[in-house]
Amino acid sequence: MIVGIVGASGYTAGELIRLLCIHPEVEIVWVTSRRFVGKPLSSVHPNLRGFTDLRFRGYSHEMIKDCDVVFLCLPHHASMDFVKDMFGGVKIIDLSADFRIKNPEIYAQYYSEHSCPDLLSKAVYGMPELHREEIKNAELVANPGCISTSVILGMHPLVQNLDSLRVTVDVKIGSSAAGRGASLSTTHAERCGVVRSYQPANHRHLAEIEQELGLQNVGITCHAVDMVRGVLSTCHVFPEKLPTMKDLREIYRKCYGNEPFVRVVVRKNPPYNLPDVKTVIYSNFCEIGFVIDDHANRLVIFSAIDNLIKGSAGQAIQNLNLMFGLDETTGLKTPGFYL
Amino acid sequence: MIVGIVGASGYTAGELIRLLCIHPEVEIVWVTSRRFVGKPLSSVHPNLRGFTDLRFRGYSHEMIKDCDVVFLCLPHHASMDFVKDMFGGVKIIDLSADFRIKNPEIYAQYYSEHSCPDLLSKAVYGMPELHREEIKNAELVANPGCISTSVILGMHPLVQNLDSLRVTVDVKIGSSAAGRGASLSTTHAERCGVVRSYQPANHRHLAEIEQELGLQNVGITCHAVDMVRGVLSTCHVFPEKLPTMKDLREIYRKCYGNEPFVRVVVRKNPPYNLPDVKTVIYSNFCEIGFVIDDHANRLVIFSAIDNLIKGSAGQAIQNLNLMFGLDETTGLKTPGFYL
Amino acid sequence: MIVGIVGASGYTAGELIRLLCIHPEVEIVWVTSRRFVGKPLSSVHPNLRGFTDLRFRGYSHEMIKDCDVVFLCLPHHASMDFVKDMFGGVKIIDLSADFRIKNPEIYAQYYSEHSCPDLLSKAVYGMPELHREEIKNAELVANPGCISTSVILGMHPLVQNLDSLRVTVDVKIGSSAAGRGASLSTTHAERCGVVRSYQPANHRHLAEIEQELGLQNVGITCHAVDMVRGVLSTCHVFPEKLPTMKDLREIYRKCYGNEPFVRVVVRKNPPYNLPDVKTVIYSNFCEIGFVIDDHANRLVIFSAIDNLIKGSAGQAIQNLNLMFGLDETTGLKTPGFYL
Amino acid sequence: MIVGIVGASGYTAGELIRLLCIHPEVEIVWVTSRRFVGKPLSSVHPNLRGFTDLRFRGYSHEMIKDCDVVFLCLPHHASMDFVKDMFGGVKIIDLSADFRIKNPEIYAQYYSEHSCPDLLSKAVYGMPELHREEIKNAELVANPGCISTSVILGMHPLVQNLDSLRVTVDVKIGSSAAGRGASLSTTHAERCGVVRSYQPANHRHLAEIEQELGLQNVGITCHAVDMVRGVLSTCHVFPEKLPTMKDLREIYRKCYGNEPFVRVVVRKNPPYNLPDVKTVIYSNFCEIGFVIDDHANRLVIFSAIDNLIKGSAGQAIQNLNLMFGLDETTGLKTPGFYL
Repeated sequence: MIVGIVGASGYTAGELIRLLCIHPEVEIVWVTSRRFVGKPLSSVHPNLRGFTDLRFRGYSHEMIKDCDVVFLCLPHHASMDFVKDMFGGVKIIDLSADFRIKNPEIYAQYYSEHSCPDLLSKAVYGMPELHREEIKNAELVANPGCISTSVILGMHPLVQNLDSLRVTVDVKIGSSAAGRGASLSTTHAERCGVVRSYQPANHRHLAEIEQELGLQNVGITCHAVDMVRGVLSTCHVFPEKLPTMKDLREIYRKCYGNEPFVRVVVRKNPPYNLPDVKTVIYSNFCEIGFVIDDHANRLVIFSAIDNLIKGSAGQAIQNLNLMFGLDETTGLKTPGFYL
Repeated sequence: MIVGIVGASGYTAGELIRLLCIHPEVEIVWVTSRRFVGKPLSSVHPNLRGFTDLRFRGYSHEMIKDCDVVFLCLPHHASMDFVKDMFGGVKIIDLSADFRIKNPEIYAQYYSEHSCPDLLSKAVYGMPELHREEIKNAELVANPGCISTSVILGMHPLVQNLDSLRVTVDVKIGSSAAGRGASLSTTHAERCGVVRSYQPANHRHLAEIEQELGLQNVGITCHAVDMVRGVLSTCHVFPEKLPTMKDLREIYRKCYGNEPFVRVVVRKNPPYNLPDVKTVIYSNFCEIGFVIDDHANRLVIFSAIDNLIKGSAGQAIQNLNLMFGLDETTGLKTPGFYL
Repeated sequence: MIVGIVGASGYTAGELIRLLCIHPEVEIVWVTSRRFVGKPLSSVHPNLRGFTDLRFRGYSHEMIKDCDVVFLCLPHHASMDFVKDMFGGVKIIDLSADFRIKNPEIYAQYYSEHSCPDLLSKAVYGMPELHREEIKNAELVANPGCISTSVILGMHPLVQNLDSLRVTVDVKIGSSAAGRGASLSTTHAERCGVVRSYQPANHRHLAEIEQELGLQNVGITCHAVDMVRGVLSTCHVFPEKLPTMKDLREIYRKCYGNEPFVRVVVRKNPPYNLPDVKTVIYSNFCEIGFVIDDHANRLVIFSAIDNLIKGSAGQAIQNLNLMFGLDETTGLKTPGFYL
Repeated sequence: MIVGIVGASGYTAGELIRLLCIHPEVEIVWVTSRRFVGKPLSSVHPNLRGFTDLRFRGYSHEMIKDCDVVFLCLPHHASMDFVKDMFGGVKIIDLSADFRIKNPEIYAQYYSEHSCPDLLSKAVYGMPELHREEIKNAELVANPGCISTSVILGMHPLVQNLDSLRVTVDVKIGSSAAGRGASLSTTHAERCGVVRSYQPANHRHLAEIEQELGLQNVGITCHAVDMVRGVLSTCHVFPEKLPTMKDLREIYRKCYGNEPFVRVVVRKNPPYNLPDVKTVIYSNFCEIGFVIDDHANRLVIFSAIDNLIKGSAGQAIQNLNLMFGLDETTGLKTPGFYL
């Protein structure tokens, strides 16, 4: 496929380009960045030295004619106007939040007024494990957020099988999620050694989490920890009646037994018996594990991903593969590194 | 005071000795370690070079005659027999878990059979904020656990003021809590980059947490994160009725307004508006913050400490100061480093 | 090719297996580990979950009949006896130091007495950039050490072109180089935050460095720094006469212009203008840069690699590709991650 | 003493204020910062919560009348005009580079044109180990740079005792040395995992290093590594004739045997047998070690400090103590933390 990328200087775009460089069916024809026009890609993404000679360009409408698909790697609100401009002319995979929320009022509540609410119904929420068939035919895919991906994948089988769940999610996330912008709080000396909540309630991703899981009143508390990549979502779940371990294994295996990028971790003994960001980063895998806490009448669901891959660029390529009839795992089936 | 230390080679003991070296009223006369007998302290604690010429010795009963107080820095179960041997002959501050739990059956359930349950009632749980007066007259102080310290300090004002709280604690902790022993899972290459639960339910500290807070069915999930020092406990609390922010400020200020080592953080805006392990490590301070989550009908209480100082050696010195009629802050009133 | 791996539980082997799992022309038929016989590979290398169902076996001579090539991932001295047993029956790529040094007396001086010195002359030093043609026909490849790889690649063009070089190498290396064994000094709490020399002179890799570069009296000082992967070798070089920047660019481009895994970094301005371990780890690339210091009459050559990939498993696969007539880059041409 | 601080929002100032808060003979009466006028100190230095109620002010000349001494914590070039304004009216400890270099031409070469070169001769280079007596009577102390401190302390005994030394210094330094400003290259995601040279030759500190050591043509190459605090300078020294280990021990002990903040590390075996930033950070100590490399006819001198303490704020307080007739160690004699 012939691919163009809008907003190609950020971390998400860097990861996307890295993955596309090694995708056997893709050719990138242009990448845009207002700030870096004329500069080679590798001046911003030094790991790509030798993999591409592309330079950043400015964007103009006619560029979409050269492409089968365009990826938008822009901040929320910036993306919607590009979609308005492109929609109908080219397939779009939007990595921003702009088309994830079906209800424009909820979008406005968490983000801002939407400039093209009529297009919301055209967009498919790009999580293959939930919407594989719709993605295949989508003209516009709204690629999920990273925290949302970990929470939705972790909780989806449970909400399908248990009623009346009360859920509180405690998220630990790395610094790459804050993007490439420099500010005091993201400076190395300030950010190293941190374990603190940066969003103690009402994180924006709640909108898509509740939409996709059909839950309400979910609590979410996000913590910055000292790492660059990765998300671990610890979902504290209070069901009306505790399932057994056997129930849980069946629920998750039935749901994810054939999923190429979800690994249910059910080892009995340490080490490596519960999901860990270390085991999934640098890969497109999501690891899910679960524990029953009889003492507190509680389930704990752990879900770990790489925020830039399964939580963003890798999932976008799953969507690309589905949209163009390729094996969904094309270009993505590589293990992480562990060390 | 003249001080002896049993089990002086571990991290907790290292921190204790460091603090005692700069305590104006203390002289350490002996330190023991079976493994390092004859070696200088600084061969195990290199930061103490130039601060002490002591060498490790073996322990014998008569050594307690030289002391006003003995600190026990031993693993749980190892400590109780030393206490049995010493009790009555010298004041004791026990940093293990052996005398924290009043009910020997609960001790047995979380640890092991107790060899001297009759002494349990003699011990005072050494958390000054809760038991200051009893500590002053104690012969045996059971110094609290690190996770327990953060959770109890965080929740104590709330349980005094609100009824019927359901509490789930999500803990993030550094590698020094695992002690000085080498194993695969604590190796640098394996432990770096980790965010994983190592104790998804029923952590042993639950016993003292429920005892001191008067709560039942508390959920607790502990996570290893990539740092050496520090604990952040995020307490997700579900009250029958949400208090207001003003209520909370009053509750915490009333309880901790005069506490020398508890800082209630109530800044409105970032940065530094919520407790962070980075702000308290290398100090004896506990920082507590709180947030109301209307959406999920939930309170979130954050409590951050240095696990080796306020969570262990520093709190032990607060207890020492109280037991000997000194200003409680002697030798402890230094800021952390932030960077 | 059909591949067997001896000593498959360590970090080097883990990385090798990861790379072989995604190599299009390789099938691994057995892996051995005395300690983990019967256990699945993924119980030791958790990132490989889902990529292989192999279990560790014990080794016996007849197993080599099933293979085109065997990789030995053993400590030095343990490897030589396996080579003695296998040589002639199967192609061997030995990742230990046992066959890197041509002179058995020098081997003995840095390591120990050699048990089969007659085989030393059969071995080819497996650095494609220096010995590509010999590797193609080798029966036994001695895969280079990680520090050696960075130093030799950094200095090779210079020694080819300048006379009478005096060289002192200052190495910074991560903890994975210490292997999987647990000891106090490799524990997370002890190893974090370290910047110290662990081998201030006469590192064993000096033997192969001086052999391959044809230099004598090279100084080398190795430092542990707080990272898991990566080596940066800073070569302080004192030539009789300083070359110009133009000379240097030509020297390095002529030597490495066609090398698939060596990138000469010659950007004028920051960022990313000098080699950085961050830019090469998780890839098979070596980045080399150079600076002229007129003030001190000195050249500084920087050479950065991933110690487990270009410094070990990745280079081993380059050798594999060469030995079996494949494109040398097969299975290796992926960028690093930068973040 | 009554103290004022100009430029109090940076990391160096933060560390200085932390140390002054626990100094028994000091009262801080004002701190200035143009950017944060009116804000409490703790809004910028959160570790100081509870230790000071001061707020940032603007500066005016008459404020010096309230002080015995003023600390200047400003960038180079900004400091000199304040000194011009204050000199004669109050004792000054200048933490910038502006008065370190005696020769204004060399200052201009490394920094910029000097606006008051006549004051250069009034300044004393504030390294107590070299200039203790002059500091006692100084009106203006030029506090040394951090890299300079480590290199000069490491090399001083050697240049006093050996002739014709050729010296190349390989420096590893943490991110706090870059100060509080936010830029892409100091962002957490970009700076984590880095091992790269940011100043491969001619670092500005060379000017003071050569001045104080009486050396010429010193080579210096500085590397950023992934830590916040600390400097390790590895000095590769080529003497005409190698001394013995006994010679070296005597040279260093004679020079530093009575120094309160220099520890010569001469342990035979690991661990902790060579200087390590981990052992000295969070303290005012400098650790020095040395190794003879017969193979390369080379000495290696290691010198480790905390860049913000012995390399800046702590050394400034040593100078303060000397200038006011206090015990030089007042407020500084605390061990580091190791973990």
